[in-house]
Order: sequence, then structure tokens, then C-alpha cells
Amino acid sequence: MPDATEPGAGQASAACPAGYRILDVEGLRAMLADVASLRARLGGPPDSWRINEVSDGNLNAVFIAEGPAGAVCAKQALPYVRVDQAWAMPLERIVFEHEYMRRTGPHVGALAPEIYHYDPTLYCLVMQLLSPHIILRRGLIARRCYPRAAADIGEYVARACFATSALARPFEVAFDALSLFARNQALLRISVDLIFTDPYRIAPRNRWTAPYLDGIAAEFRRDAGLKLAAARWGRRFLTCPQALLHGDLHSGSVMATEDDTRVIDGEFSFMGPIGFDCGAFIANLLLNAFAQPGHGGEAAACRDFQAWVLSQAEVFWARFSERFLALWQQEAAGDVYPADLFADPDGARRLQQERVAFVDGVWTDTVGFAAMKMIRRILGFAHVLDFESIADPAVRSACEAGALCFARRMLLEPEAFPTPAALTAAAASAIAAA
Amino acid sequence: MPDATEPGAGQASAACPAGYRILDVEGLRAMLADVASLRARLGGPPDSWRINEVSDGNLNAVFIAEGPAGAVCAKQALPYVRVDQAWAMPLERIVFEHEYMRRTGPHVGALAPEIYHYDPTLYCLVMQLLSPHIILRRGLIARRCYPRAAADIGEYVARACFATSALARPFEVAFDALSLFARNQALLRISVDLIFTDPYRIAPRNRWTAPYLDGIAAEFRRDAGLKLAAARWGRRFLTCPQALLHGDLHSGSVMATEDDTRVIDGEFSFMGPIGFDCGAFIANLLLNAFAQPGHGGEAAACRDFQAWVLSQAEVFWARFSERFLALWQQEAAGDVYPADLFADPDGARRLQQERVAFVDGVWTDTVGFAAMKMIRRILGFAHVLDFESIADPAVRSACEAGALCFARRMLLEPEAFPTPAALTAAAASAIAAA
Repeated sequence: MPDATEPGAGQASAACPAGYRILDVEGLRAMLADVASLRARLGGPPDSWRINEVSDGNLNAVFIAEGPAGAVCAKQALPYVRVDQAWAMPLERIVFEHEYMRRTGPHVGALAPEIYHYDPTLYCLVMQLLSPHIILRRGLIARRCYPRAAADIGEYVARACFATSALARPFEVAFDALSLFARNQALLRISVDLIFTDPYRIAPRNRWTAPYLDGIAAEFRRDAGLKLAAARWGRRFLTCPQALLHGDLHSGSVMATEDDTRVIDGEFSFMGPIGFDCGAFIANLLLNAFAQPGHGGEAAACRDFQAWVLSQAEVFWARFSERFLALWQQEAAGDVYPADLFADPDGARRLQQERVAFVDGVWTDTVGFAAMKMIRRILGFAHVLDFESIADPAVRSACEAGALCFARRMLLEPEAFPTPAALTAAAASAIAAA
Repeated sequence: MPDATEPGAGQASAACPAGYRILDVEGLRAMLADVASLRARLGGPPDSWRINEVSDGNLNAVFIAEGPAGAVCAKQALPYVRVDQAWAMPLERIVFEHEYMRRTGPHVGALAPEIYHYDPTLYCLVMQLLSPHIILRRGLIARRCYPRAAADIGEYVARACFATSALARPFEVAFDALSLFARNQALLRISVDLIFTDPYRIAPRNRWTAPYLDGIAAEFRRDAGLKLAAARWGRRFLTCPQALLHGDLHSGSVMATEDDTRVIDGEFSFMGPIGFDCGAFIANLLLNAFAQPGHGGEAAACRDFQAWVLSQAEVFWARFSERFLALWQQEAAGDVYPADLFADPDGARRLQQERVAFVDGVWTDTVGFAAMKMIRRILGFAHVLDFESIADPAVRSACEAGALCFARRMLLEPEAFPTPAALTAAAASAIAAA
């Protein structure tokens, strides 16, 4: 690899702030060596460190650095989309990721990696290396069960969302976050276009498994009822700041082992409806279940894994709802439903009903947003490995069509999915019928 | 008046930023003389200008300056609440008022005063002197009809709210406002406490016409259903940023003549639910109607004026809803309900149904927020002249009790008020029965 001082290496665009340079392995080595705490953590002389670029997501560069005493993971924002360098993208996205981790970290504890260092000039975040974790999505595709993952993510969303809502703390805390994260507009623009709009119209970035899905894609673009539902969820996405959300909580944003679960990649964070995070996670469980027949193997193994992965949607929701309600009962000190108005028995009883109704509302949001997330992964720009790794397009498109039709039902007949059990039972039937 | 250089005059608190001083008449004269455009507007030598302090609202100092060629109105934020100097209040509130006027001004045109100058060091806004306008509230108390006022305010809210919503423009414009106005926390704190919380609990700033209303105040504090409704509206106030709101649009924030209507005092502005502005205006029409029997005069004149003032709630809503829908049909270029998804006839038809449903939702919000605003003006800190100018506490409290009971119905039986006509008919019955 070229040295960062050579022409052509470390070149950032003219719009980048002074001091910013794109790090390569040697650039990162110099940066890590400059920070005493990181040098101590890695141990030994800097030239003994093994540093590898392991970039995997769509947006950023990611490195692993290992020394004799320890290891770190470094993530740098690039001035463009990593997988599409013609698509400029502001570096500030990592400011929001860092702020998201700072604000949720004290509440989610070991459900996220620890931050070791943040370099505001290089837009580089250095954090705990998660090992031997793998991306949950990859594990699920390989039909590996992660007994803790769904419950851990339910716990994570409950804690992160409750703590950052005006249920938990004075509204000023939530409004400070609202003020800051309302500036995460470049990434919100991606969500607005790629989730809520592009899949329902002709758009240059759309792609799907052609020609197999040409018909259903055209149907979706013609279906005014479906588009109205999509637009309603888009409105709710933009105008319902209940809590600080991760904003992109699919199974690719989760690192897991059988014993440990961590949420990463919070650059899409913003103040939004809690069901958007819940829906992202459930959508990706559903997508995995619909994709399983494309991955071959024994039919029984496939069916068993599908049943397990669908059951995890229920596990997720059971943990999320139980913990969110418990936190609200135990730790509410916010301006929304101020505790001192409901101290008497009648007030306490009514407030508890209201809490349950609020969480029921999050479920309604979860179903709608999950459907939106399923559709965008099949008809829009960014697809998921669960389907992409099915080589035969005829097989792949059959799996995708099943998921699309199910997602359409979730949008148009939400009353058919009043509970997680109803949702997963219906999904199991839809998969079996396909 | 002491000169601004004398000890004791122009003293601001230690927390005030450098260069800030509290203006008196001579301080304002010097400031106006320093700005060429203002000197030209007033004309003649500065010492020929007649300057008077005319402060009337709760928060700020207001002056009128008149010269041979013209006149201006100057408003300065004080480091405390003007009517309660022990209550510190950040100067920044006038930054938000200025930004609110800057953002809505191009859309509302002559329905707000023109800004002539803004001094960021003195936190002083110099604007068009509205003459011979008076505060609408004072005119309504004197039983003067303003034939344009309600329709003009409907027009104002429709234009200001539509233009600042993500229905009209890319979400980034709305999110820039969200980011900025989420920092207007000192004034939002006033609204959160004084509207949504304090009237429903023992709070040091509460007052009411004692002992007459002691019983009903205690009833309100005990009524868990009422408190739950109040808390729900508080939640919606904080988590529904549909548009940039005025935030305090009562009849004291409107200057009127028979031919002209202007909205002033936007320091409470924030991104919130549109029904909050609509509700503020309608609440203050209702309060005026309930107060009229306390102002004596001929019974027929009183009844006629009550009927007229109630009818203005319908006039307001008719104009607001018609204009909001028309703007949405004609000028929508936003990310919420993106126009290009609904270009075909079926899409256009469904979108129009959705628009109507959205405006119906604003009406539901309007009823709820109007009730909250009525209650806070009778059981909370800041009262209205409509009642306060009734000298006899027995008479005053009887009027207030009628308004309180009606507001409670609005909160607990919202389905009884599906339209403005239903609301005003019910209010007329309640007043007649009292």
C-alpha cells in the first residue's frame, strides 16, 4: 500500500476540512501511535502492530489493529460512499455515530463496543475489537443459532430508547439530542429516499432480480394504496421524535457470538419513532426466514432454522416490551407523563394502562416500518446478503417475491398482525405456501 | 428616567453577554441613531424623536419611537421575566422570535409586522409600528368586532405552518428549523410546566380566583382521567414536529384594526403540532365568550357579541382548513407524501382523502390543545385580561368555572366536538345554561 505522504494516497476531496486525510494502514499506525492510551493498549513498538483493513459496510473504512498487549478496531468516515465513490457523503456522519454511542453507552453497557478514542480531525473512531464475534446476518445465513441475540437486542432497544426519551428525563435532554441529530441530514436523506420513496417509483438507484421481479416491482409502483401507506410511514419517520434511535438496526449492525451481542454502526442515528429500530431488527429476521429455502441443505434443517429465526422476533419483542415497561415504571423522571401527576392509586392504574397502550403503538409502528425495510432491501438500492448470496436468480427471486408479498400484506392489512405471534405465524404460513 | 450611563440604569445581570445592556429611552435613542436605515426612517435629528416605553406583555421591554418621517417599534429581551424579575430568563428568546419571523415572513406577508433591524448584541428587534392597531384581546373585551381577524389568523396559520412543514419543502428545511428551535428550551420549559403540568398539581406559581374555585381546582388535581388526557397532550406537544409554530398564538399576540390583522410575539416558536397554534387562538375566543357576562352592559349586546365571537372560531377554522388544503394541493414539494408517488388519478384521489384526514387530525389536536390553554389561564400562573378585568371575584369565578367545566368536557369527551360548529354550539349552550 502506498504511504500516506505519496501522491494518490490519503487524498481527500477539496471539500474535506483541514487536517483530514484518508487513512491507509500506515496512516492509521501513525495515528494510533500518537495516542498514549491506544499505544499502551496495543503494547510493544508501533511497527510490531498488525493492521488490516476489513471494510465491509457500504459507507466507511474499517481497520483492525493488533499489538502484543491488545487490539482495537478503527472506523474512519470517507468523503464518499465506500462502495460508490461517485456518491459524496459528508464526514460528519461519524460525529453522529460517536454522539449516539456516547449518549446510549451508559445505558446499554456491554451491548455495544467500548469507545477508546475519537479523533475529530480524522473523523475516526477507535473502539473495542469484538472477537470472535461475527456479523449476525452472516451467522443467520449459515443457519447458526444465537441464543442470546434477539433478547439482547430487545434489551438494547428498550434501554437506549427509554433513556433518551422525554419519558425518562427532562425534555431538555431529549431536545438537546433533537437539535443535534436533526443535523444528521445526509444520512436521513438516504433513509428518506431509499426506504420511503425510491422503491415505489422509477429511480436510478433501484435494482431487483430482473426479469423475475419486473412484474411485482411495476405492481408496487402502480398500487396507490401501498404508496399511500409508504408515505404515511415516511411521515411518521420524520415527525415522531420519541427517542434517540440507532436508525439502521438490521442484522448487519449486530456483532454476535453465542454468548455476547453488540450493536455497532450508529451513524444513521436520529430522534424518531421507536418502532423504526424494532422494525429494522424484525424485518431482517423475516428476510432471513424468507431467504432460507434459497440456501439449500436438508429441507428439515431449513424448516427448523426458519422456525427458530421467526421465533426470535417474538423473543425480541417480549424482551423489548417487558424491559421498556419496567424502565418506565422504575426510572421515569421525564416531562412526558410526569410521575407526580399519577402518584395516587387511580392515577397509577391509568398510567399503567397508558404505558401498555404506548407499547402497543410501538408494535403497530414496528409492523409498518418492518414492511418498509423488507421492501427496500428487495426493490431498492441496498440489498441484503441473505438474498444476494443465493446464486440462482430464479431461486433468489422466488424467495424475494414471497417476502415482498408478505411485506405488502403487513402494510395493507396491519390488523392481521396484532401481536408478534400473529406476525410470525403468518410469515411461517406464507413461507410454507411458497 | 435615568441616563443609561448612570449607576442603576442599564444594569444587566452578570450572566449577560458582553455588550448587552438594558435599554432605557435614551439608550434606545442612541441605538436607533447608530443605524442609518432607522435614522432615515424616523427622520430629523435623534433628539427630536419621541420615545416611550409601552411594555405590556409578560416577558420583554417594548418601546415606540416616533420621528418626523416615521415610527418604529423596538422590543428588547430582558434577562428576566419583566413581570417577575426574580425569574431569570435567557436573552436568546428574541433570537428565536427573530428567526421565526424571518422564516415565516415571506409566507405570511402583511399578516405580520415588517422587521426593520435586529441587533444581536442588545437582543433587540426593531420592527414596523402597528398603528392604529390594538391588541385583539382588548378589542374583544370591549365587544368590538374585527371582521377580518379570525379569517386572517386562519390564513396566517395555514401559510406559516404549511410552508415550514416537510409537506412543502425537502425535509432538510424542516430539520434545520427543528435543530434550531429545539434550543428554545427556556420558553418551551414555560409551556411544559405552565400549560401541561402545573394546573394539575400543587405548584407555587398557580393561582385562581379563591376561594370560589378552590373546589374545582382540587377536583382537577384529583381527576386521574383528566390528568392522563393532559399528559397525552403534553406528549404530543413535545413529540410531533409537524411545522414551525408561533407557540403562543392567543388573542394577545394579535394586533388588529377592522381592516388589518398582524401576528406578533413569536418568542415561543418551535416545531410542533399545528393544532397547538389553532387551539391557542380558538381557546382565547372561547375564554372571551365565557368572560362576557362579567363585563356587564345590556344582556342582548352581551349575547350578540358572544354569538359573534364564537362564530369566529368557525370562521378561523374554515379559512385555515381551506387554505392549508389548497396550499398542499398547489405547492407541495416536500418529502412527506412526495408528489410524484401520487400523480395518477387513483393516487391523486387517495392523496386528497389523506389530506382531508390530516386536517381532521389537526382539528382533533386543536380541541385538545384549546382545552389545555383554557385551563392554564384560569388555574395556572398567567391569566387573561378577559377574566382579570372582571372586578367582582364572585362574578369572575362564575365565568371562569363555566370555562373550566367546558374545557374539561373538551378533554374527556372529544368525540362530542367533531367540528367547529359542534364546538361553538356546545359552548353557546354551556354559556346559556350558566
